[in-house]
Amino acid sequence: MTQLKQQVCEANLQLPAHQLVTFSWGNVSAIDRQSGLMVIKPSGVAYEKLRPEDMVVVEPDGYYHGPLRPSSDTATHLALYRQYPELGGIVHTHSTYATAWAQAMRPVPVLGTTHADYFYGEIPCTRQLKAEEVSHDYERNTGEVIIHTLQDRPPMQVPAVIVAQHGPFCWGSDAAEAVHNAVVLEEVARLAWLSCQLKPQPEVIPPYLQDKHFKRKHGKHAYYGQG
Amino acid sequence: MTQLKQQVCEANLQLPAHQLVTFSWGNVSAIDRQSGLMVIKPSGVAYEKLRPEDMVVVEPDGYYHGPLRPSSDTATHLALYRQYPELGGIVHTHSTYATAWAQAMRPVPVLGTTHADYFYGEIPCTRQLKAEEVSHDYERNTGEVIIHTLQDRPPMQVPAVIVAQHGPFCWGSDAAEAVHNAVVLEEVARLAWLSCQLKPQPEVIPPYLQDKHFKRKHGKHAYYGQG
Amino acid sequence: MTQLKQQVCEANLQLPAHQLVTFSWGNVSAIDRQSGLMVIKPSGVAYEKLRPEDMVVVEPDGYYHGPLRPSSDTATHLALYRQYPELGGIVHTHSTYATAWAQAMRPVPVLGTTHADYFYGEIPCTRQLKAEEVSHDYERNTGEVIIHTLQDRPPMQVPAVIVAQHGPFCWGSDAAEAVHNAVVLEEVARLAWLSCQLKPQPEVIPPYLQDKHFKRKHGKHAYYGQG
Amino acid sequence: MTQLKQQVCEANLQLPAHQLVTFSWGNVSAIDRQSGLMVIKPSGVAYEKLRPEDMVVVEPDGYYHGPLRPSSDTATHLALYRQYPELGGIVHTHSTYATAWAQAMRPVPVLGTTHADYFYGEIPCTRQLKAEEVSHDYERNTGEVIIHTLQDRPPMQVPAVIVAQHGPFCWGSDAAEAVHNAVVLEEVARLAWLSCQLKPQPEVIPPYLQDKHFKRKHGKHAYYGQG
Repeated sequence: MTQLKQQVCEANLQLPAHQLVTFSWGNVSAIDRQSGLMVIKPSGVAYEKLRPEDMVVVEPDGYYHGPLRPSSDTATHLALYRQYPELGGIVHTHSTYATAWAQAMRPVPVLGTTHADYFYGEIPCTRQLKAEEVSHDYERNTGEVIIHTLQDRPPMQVPAVIVAQHGPFCWGSDAAEAVHNAVVLEEVARLAWLSCQLKPQPEVIPPYLQDKHFKRKHGKHAYYGQG
Repeated sequence: MTQLKQQVCEANLQLPAHQLVTFSWGNVSAIDRQSGLMVIKPSGVAYEKLRPEDMVVVEPDGYYHGPLRPSSDTATHLALYRQYPELGGIVHTHSTYATAWAQAMRPVPVLGTTHADYFYGEIPCTRQLKAEEVSHDYERNTGEVIIHTLQDRPPMQVPAVIVAQHGPFCWGSDAAEAVHNAVVLEEVARLAWLSCQLKPQPEVIPPYLQDKHFKRKHGKHAYYGQG
Repeated sequence: MTQLKQQVCEANLQLPAHQLVTFSWGNVSAIDRQSGLMVIKPSGVAYEKLRPEDMVVVEPDGYYHGPLRPSSDTATHLALYRQYPELGGIVHTHSTYATAWAQAMRPVPVLGTTHADYFYGEIPCTRQLKAEEVSHDYERNTGEVIIHTLQDRPPMQVPAVIVAQHGPFCWGSDAAEAVHNAVVLEEVARLAWLSCQLKPQPEVIPPYLQDKHFKRKHGKHAYYGQG
Repeated sequence: MTQLKQQVCEANLQLPAHQLVTFSWGNVSAIDRQSGLMVIKPSGVAYEKLRPEDMVVVEPDGYYHGPLRPSSDTATHLALYRQYPELGGIVHTHSTYATAWAQAMRPVPVLGTTHADYFYGEIPCTRQLKAEEVSHDYERNTGEVIIHTLQDRPPMQVPAVIVAQHGPFCWGSDAAEAVHNAVVLEEVARLAWLSCQLKPQPEVIPPYLQDKHFKRKHGKHAYYGQG
């Protein structure tokens, strides 16, 4: 757990370093798949004071060992880990451009290769949560709606979903990769926002360009990087 | 007073640190409710030169003890403290996005949970001041128009109002919380501005989502943070 | 001249410090009214290498003493000093938002008190220069067109003009004040740009609010600052 | 080669310094025209870890000497060097505003003198690549499409092309000048983007103003700088 707490703490500190958060708005978790234990940021603690030992260990049912309370979004993280065994880390932020799309309740269209390098297809936006989903088990229901939105798309090919009128959740094979994807999402959301001001409905890229770029970076035929 | 001057000085220095001000455009005050004395930034002094001992003590009627003159917006602060006993600190800035809404004379609509976490309902924009309100007691009248705009809404549930064709006033239980709310206002104003470029009239959030988020952070059922 | 060179060098270094310039795009001058000599930044020299002794002394007719060549915009500065005896310093930049208005060939409307505090009325945009004005004495003609644009408005009440399809020229009583006004112009241009995205033609402020704010800061009835 | 590797490494490090890249998205190369060897950034290596000795030497046919693999865009660089003997350095980025235009598949119009100082005429955008151009020799075909887009325009008068739905390629007489042009392109793309929000189709500058500004900085009649 010590190592995982260290990783989760470092990943949380990357959020302000990449200007993805204001004050304490955001949280990163990681899971130890062997024990099933999740490590997550404590709720409402300022990033500048965050230490590895402050990270909170949470059991799959949400039970946690004090003294600090885990992030208020804990149940969303747990729901996603439960559904997708390939997830090792999850990030939630209110990063500016991704949240702007969430507030407009529009998915982020694939307008270029920057997007295609990391996301296979559009970044979906959930439907609004219903009154009863908000009043009971709100955070778990947020996770369920994300899962419903992804449908059959593999989560590692769409490592982010934006929650309507709220903000993005992102993931990866570990906490660091999840944060990496959160940074990419924000830049992709910004690029798409800017393009939409130059042309109301820009053309999405053709499927062969999507394939080429995503596969240049992912899978066994990848030739980007030093792999 | 020494401690309050220290707090007000530190709160003022948070304005440039959070990029809410250009040059000396902005001011923070706090009030000592026992003595009724207000402490406020001196007028037109550069932030980099601001020291706790430069803060100006002002009596409820506006009388101050030299040598420095208090902020030219002093009478606005006094009017708000007089009306709302729950206020402990007030901030005025020309922060960019909040001022853009003020210049367009539009209230900031509740488009997402970032807004709902801090503000219960839209952030209102005042009507324009009339010629006679500007020519006599302009700064006091600015306070009166803010009060008129808030109507019966509790000021701690709407900790900011934007003054038409001018800029925002924010408040809190003390100077630090007022500045915190000024930072949030600017980010919320920016998010709403961005969303409105993606969709001309984005849907406001449903009342149950507003309730959930505001109450998750405020009041006796709050479960955000380490409370 | 040593002191003026020092002031002009320092004022030039404020341009990158306030993020008003990319590379060497921009220049500040000041004039010694007794001798009639102008001191200006050398042409195309990087800010990080600029030293007071590099500043170039230029005579009213444009003659300069080696070894460095003065800014290519020298004749524009000279034309403005010749016309307006109250000018002590001049700045030219391609600062982003002011240049965006220049490229759209629109004046910056008075949408709020931030603008009114520094500029009495809209910030005008020149007409386009004609072919013959560009082919002969281009830089001097740029100055003439600025003068023509100002008409009878006092230059110290409108301390900036934006040149169509080019960028802003700003001025003040000395080099430091001219740079101060260039920073204000950029923020005012940004605020107006943002407001125009929320409402296509925002209402300009009423004359009584313009008067109040400008006179709160300027003239014998000013009560802003420590006077 | 040691000196060229040093130059290419330094030029690559200028990309994050000028905020033109996120993570490792971008690459700079230079060519030694005598030997025909190109030096380029290794693929997917983080800028903070980049050392001169990591630069990869590539032969004109794409053959390289290990241990690191060259940038995945190597074949695009080689195609451009092959076609244009005057090129000494090439840069590829996904810089934000230039990429926004690429995603909207619009050329950047000449709206002001900032543009005219560096680019003679609009900055063209390529057509989309076809399926067969993407599936075989994608990166070489990207170079071919850039060449096709430039037509007969001299590449040193148009030192950048934006690739549709992808991003910009820029060049210069060496690696440092190519990066300089990439910084200028981003600012010019931003200015044009901003202007287009103030006026849907801003007027392009007249030919005589384009000529004046480009020739003030380039060719034997240049009088900008200390030349």
